[in-house]
Amino acid sequence: MSKTAATTFAGETFGRFVIETKWDDVPAKVRHEAKRSLLNFIGCALGSARDPAIETAVGVLKTFAGAPTATVIGRSERMDALNASFINAVSANLLDYDDTHLRTVIHPTAPVAPPVLALAEQRGSSGADVILAFLLGAEVECRLGNSVSGHYARGWHITTTCGVFGAAAAASRLLKLSPQQTWTALGIAASQAAGIVENLPNGAKNVSVGNSARNGLLSAIFAQQGYNAAPASIEGRNGWARACGDEVSMQELIGELGTRWEIGRNTYKPYPCGIVMHSIIDACLDLRKEHGISAADIVSVVVRGSPLLHERGDRPVRNERDARVSIHHSVAAPFLWGAGGVREFSEPLAMGAEARALREKVRAEVDTKMPNGAAQVAVKTTAGKELEKTVINAKGSFENPLTDAEIEAKTRGQASTNPAGRNIDKVISAVWDLDRAANIGGIMRELAAPA
Amino acid sequence: MSKTAATTFAGETFGRFVIETKWDDVPAKVRHEAKRSLLNFIGCALGSARDPAIETAVGVLKTFAGAPTATVIGRSERMDALNASFINAVSANLLDYDDTHLRTVIHPTAPVAPPVLALAEQRGSSGADVILAFLLGAEVECRLGNSVSGHYARGWHITTTCGVFGAAAAASRLLKLSPQQTWTALGIAASQAAGIVENLPNGAKNVSVGNSARNGLLSAIFAQQGYNAAPASIEGRNGWARACGDEVSMQELIGELGTRWEIGRNTYKPYPCGIVMHSIIDACLDLRKEHGISAADIVSVVVRGSPLLHERGDRPVRNERDARVSIHHSVAAPFLWGAGGVREFSEPLAMGAEARALREKVRAEVDTKMPNGAAQVAVKTTAGKELEKTVINAKGSFENPLTDAEIEAKTRGQASTNPAGRNIDKVISAVWDLDRAANIGGIMRELAAPA
Repeated sequence: MSKTAATTFAGETFGRFVIETKWDDVPAKVRHEAKRSLLNFIGCALGSARDPAIETAVGVLKTFAGAPTATVIGRSERMDALNASFINAVSANLLDYDDTHLRTVIHPTAPVAPPVLALAEQRGSSGADVILAFLLGAEVECRLGNSVSGHYARGWHITTTCGVFGAAAAASRLLKLSPQQTWTALGIAASQAAGIVENLPNGAKNVSVGNSARNGLLSAIFAQQGYNAAPASIEGRNGWARACGDEVSMQELIGELGTRWEIGRNTYKPYPCGIVMHSIIDACLDLRKEHGISAADIVSVVVRGSPLLHERGDRPVRNERDARVSIHHSVAAPFLWGAGGVREFSEPLAMGAEARALREKVRAEVDTKMPNGAAQVAVKTTAGKELEKTVINAKGSFENPLTDAEIEAKTRGQASTNPAGRNIDKVISAVWDLDRAANIGGIMRELAAPA
Repeated sequence: MSKTAATTFAGETFGRFVIETKWDDVPAKVRHEAKRSLLNFIGCALGSARDPAIETAVGVLKTFAGAPTATVIGRSERMDALNASFINAVSANLLDYDDTHLRTVIHPTAPVAPPVLALAEQRGSSGADVILAFLLGAEVECRLGNSVSGHYARGWHITTTCGVFGAAAAASRLLKLSPQQTWTALGIAASQAAGIVENLPNGAKNVSVGNSARNGLLSAIFAQQGYNAAPASIEGRNGWARACGDEVSMQELIGELGTRWEIGRNTYKPYPCGIVMHSIIDACLDLRKEHGISAADIVSVVVRGSPLLHERGDRPVRNERDARVSIHHSVAAPFLWGAGGVREFSEPLAMGAEARALREKVRAEVDTKMPNGAAQVAVKTTAGKELEKTVINAKGSFENPLTDAEIEAKTRGQASTNPAGRNIDKVISAVWDLDRAANIGGIMRELAAPA
């Protein structure tokens, strides 16, 4: 893309960026990160596709769905592009096991990938088109998140409020809109940004995550068909940023566009639980491995971490949702089962007698010197030993990212909960080879379930 | 409904109110106001049903629409209840000619009536059920608007942000949800409240108005199917009111519920233009009638009003949208054509030579002693006369409401732009008799256009 001159409106700049950026304008590392994001997304969607929340959403929307042009990941139903986008976004984000842009805590891919895949399937777009549309949409999304202050604190669920813009941008690219139409699509998205923190642990959150994908696509289609929007819908006096935040930074929004890539800072969770718990699991897995200790050897455990860890994770565990943000269960799972995956955070295991008993032996302590995201685990064993492990950068953090092989393994684990005769290795290979795919029909067929 | 005990959560109180209120609990005057609102809504939707904005919306959504169970007002297409709700809300509100709850400047009916009519048509609900569901939904909607401070000033378009709750409440009633499910539906609505002031004069606004109707209905359906929401999604620490406003008044929200009826304070516009212009048109029509003067007799006109009138209406007229908020055109139309209706504010007449010439003779002056909504019009005539008329409470204000006959006449005028062989008098009678209708199938058939 050509150098962006200073312009008046963020949407105008984004419109040009989204439409004019070419494959070679994006560093290979950033393009690869897009593939990692897409693979991680696919695994998360497959892993949740049979969850009751998805069964309900499919049941509700099938009455209202049109021409079945798009795959619903992990399922036999096909839907129109808007409704498939809704469902695929919900399943990808359902367990908060999807990706995280750490600076904003946006889960970037859930709102953006679904409309890209739905449109690409319908239009026969190439794999390279999919990668570019996705990463440009995610870039817009994360930059909106960077640009606003006070947004999350006011109660806005940033994944959904910024996600709708990312989805609009990505869909605009795939629909080959003009820069002007893309600017308009972002403006229409600004009138559809919703989702509140109060509802985060509830089904209501799923609806707003689904809407962010669906309505982003809808924005692009309305822009394509001639609807208009205010030029400053993002940063204007009565625009989105001010309506749901304090200040907006134009530098964060559109500075270094095409050279600073936010999607290049995406991260992937190794464990389906609160991100600040990850270092606890890492430490426990290390202790288990290094010292051969398991649950039966444990007398007591002390977990030390920042006030944030304490605030988020020192709580009673009454259900699986609590377990996902529990310091105590993040100790119990690795020592009991040698893992902290979907199964170890499921209701049966989290609420079983073994887990309850081991959680009883865990105590959380605040250590104000520990950075956020770090944890120290100290174990007293029945053999009288005192063992200790500190993890500063948890697996999956930006500093200690999942390798490609680890994302593959995570994806395989999730896919195994939704087998349907699928060849997941074929899907994994297809994602790594996506830039060479003439179209994505084959991968989407592999992601569906047989009728 | 039984007296509401003090409860912790606004949604809980609303849930009981919406589901437990009986026909006889509502004063006859309030029920009649609901009919006036519905008739005014029908006229507005009919009047805009062939607008290009509606053609576009129908074209976009028909690809994504499911089982055609619901009438699209003024059109031959039928759609599923969600998509029909979207279109009917957009057409009702398109010209801002619909109703106004003056204290909040919410247009209450556009978001709420469409899901009520769509569900009632599908379920064979009675006319009385329709009236009750509508007025209870509108009540919730207006109370949310009353309860928040700083909402509009931050840039939130209150018709859409509160409208989605009203639609959710009304749909919950018609779906015969439990009070608990209705509470949940309001919580799901809280994660779908969107729409910004920056986009008000644009197509993007239409999308958010349509969404408010559609997503309110979607909220009720998801609640019915078992999705949950946070108990304090409205007033909680990270809930809707705080996310998009400063303070929330629980008294305004749920005080005097069942005795103070906000929908009883609904108003209807006699003219399709900014509400503060109405007193100008009234004054000019009076001068024309009382003194027999028309455009040819006029040398100059001075319009005096509050700073608000000046701020809103003293502007160049470059198109029909400007004319709708122009002091100058609000003088020109009545003197040129003896009316201030849809035709007189249309692009051809507003941008014609006659109107341009007469607008040139009009000057606006601030009079800080004049109340908002009032206007004084002073005319110098070619015969050397100086005539003056002051209107404090414009036609259509709460103090000087449209009569039933005037709402009928407005509706007939709007319906005449969308004839389609429709018997509008039959529709009007059916609305006044709605409380005795076993179902609303007949009226909905009359509102469609033949294929």
